[in-house]
Amino acid sequence: MRNIKLTLAYDGSGYSGWQIQPQPGIKTVQGTLEQALEQLLGHKVKTNASGRTDAGVHAKGQVVNFTTDNPIPDSKLPIALNSIMPEDVVAIDCIWVEDDFHARYSAKKKRYRYTIMTDKIAWPFYRNTVYHFPRQLNVDEMKVAAEHIEGRYDFSSFCSSQASVTDFVREVYLCQISKEENFIYLDIEANGFLYNMVRIIVGTILEVGSGRLKADKISEIIEAKNRRAAGPTAPANGLCLEKVYY
Amino acid sequence: MRNIKLTLAYDGSGYSGWQIQPQPGIKTVQGTLEQALEQLLGHKVKTNASGRTDAGVHAKGQVVNFTTDNPIPDSKLPIALNSIMPEDVVAIDCIWVEDDFHARYSAKKKRYRYTIMTDKIAWPFYRNTVYHFPRQLNVDEMKVAAEHIEGRYDFSSFCSSQASVTDFVREVYLCQISKEENFIYLDIEANGFLYNMVRIIVGTILEVGSGRLKADKISEIIEAKNRRAAGPTAPANGLCLEKVYY
Repeated sequence: MRNIKLTLAYDGSGYSGWQIQPQPGIKTVQGTLEQALEQLLGHKVKTNASGRTDAGVHAKGQVVNFTTDNPIPDSKLPIALNSIMPEDVVAIDCIWVEDDFHARYSAKKKRYRYTIMTDKIAWPFYRNTVYHFPRQLNVDEMKVAAEHIEGRYDFSSFCSSQASVTDFVREVYLCQISKEENFIYLDIEANGFLYNMVRIIVGTILEVGSGRLKADKISEIIEAKNRRAAGPTAPANGLCLEKVYY
Repeated sequence: MRNIKLTLAYDGSGYSGWQIQPQPGIKTVQGTLEQALEQLLGHKVKTNASGRTDAGVHAKGQVVNFTTDNPIPDSKLPIALNSIMPEDVVAIDCIWVEDDFHARYSAKKKRYRYTIMTDKIAWPFYRNTVYHFPRQLNVDEMKVAAEHIEGRYDFSSFCSSQASVTDFVREVYLCQISKEENFIYLDIEANGFLYNMVRIIVGTILEVGSGRLKADKISEIIEAKNRRAAGPTAPANGLCLEKVYY
């Protein structure tokens, strides 16, 4: 049996998230990928992803692993998969890895990007991949707020209440706001992310940008360890899993 | 009766082009707009566009005009329309104009942009709005080729044979190639465009970029006045009507 590491990009707007759902008829990225792998390899395939992405969330560098005894060369797999999969899921790269590699448990760091467009006009081209927030934002204050997110903290305040984890401590290596014309980007790297963590951070930093919250309140919000202390959850469409580091 | 000028943006990927089709069940941008206008204004509306866009072609600044005796203020129309229309068609601006304004016949100049992505990976986010052409291109040669398009010529060689016009002379004020990272843009302005003219120009300039055609052959192709002298028609998805000048 070979253990295969596959890197994927997808436009999540047509999918009910990454994870296969128990109910029939729900389109998921994992289901789409596993169906294509089964067709290609001739056997059922169970994939492990670096993490689930929610409905409407995108990926440029999602990583999965799976095992197969099919002798197809890994270098041929992306082209073969892309000829079967719909255009909104794209296999980028495929390599044979050690048996103990696990896309989720072996991950050391992940990077997400969240994109906001402040243009007054809701340009239709970006409707699935960008959060349209047509207001004046104080980007300098947002930059200061983002800096307060960096560090090793209990991020309970930035975790959706639906979460079932017990350890809320994560280390954020980078949390950075940048601006290009009418687009504002939040880039964030951490050793792991809680449920909805990036989207709640974005929602909170947008409160700062809108003048409803002072940037230096971020540390108090972290200390509160209470979801209600933070801002709203920003929509899924602006979020993209950029890269997983091993 | 008031004569209203309306500016529209749309993602054409879900539409069979601008123009209403005689067969039922075909989704067109014009049909979508006229249905929303009828619902809003309480009467059937016939719109004139600056020009038809083909299936899959986009617009940031399509202009239409129509008449109504509904007293709704023009400044309210875009918001009202956008609350009815799907997210991929967006009303940008609306003003009351003189009776003799006609979106097509009053137009003095139009600008289109065609976008090519040369990245090896067919990133799913751009699949509807960019032509994926994953090859090395000689951009300097493409710039020279584009310059040869500028001027007042008979552009028969760059007109699809389906065309029913008799005068093939157009004046191209600007034809310019630029590059940003893995994106190549062709920006073109003219007093009018023949059927598929921009897409055939792009297809021909890509022949130059790929080294299959010398840049200085462009003038010979124009002189040939023969569609077969030019390159292939580039796909619709990379094309966008940027602006109509009056």
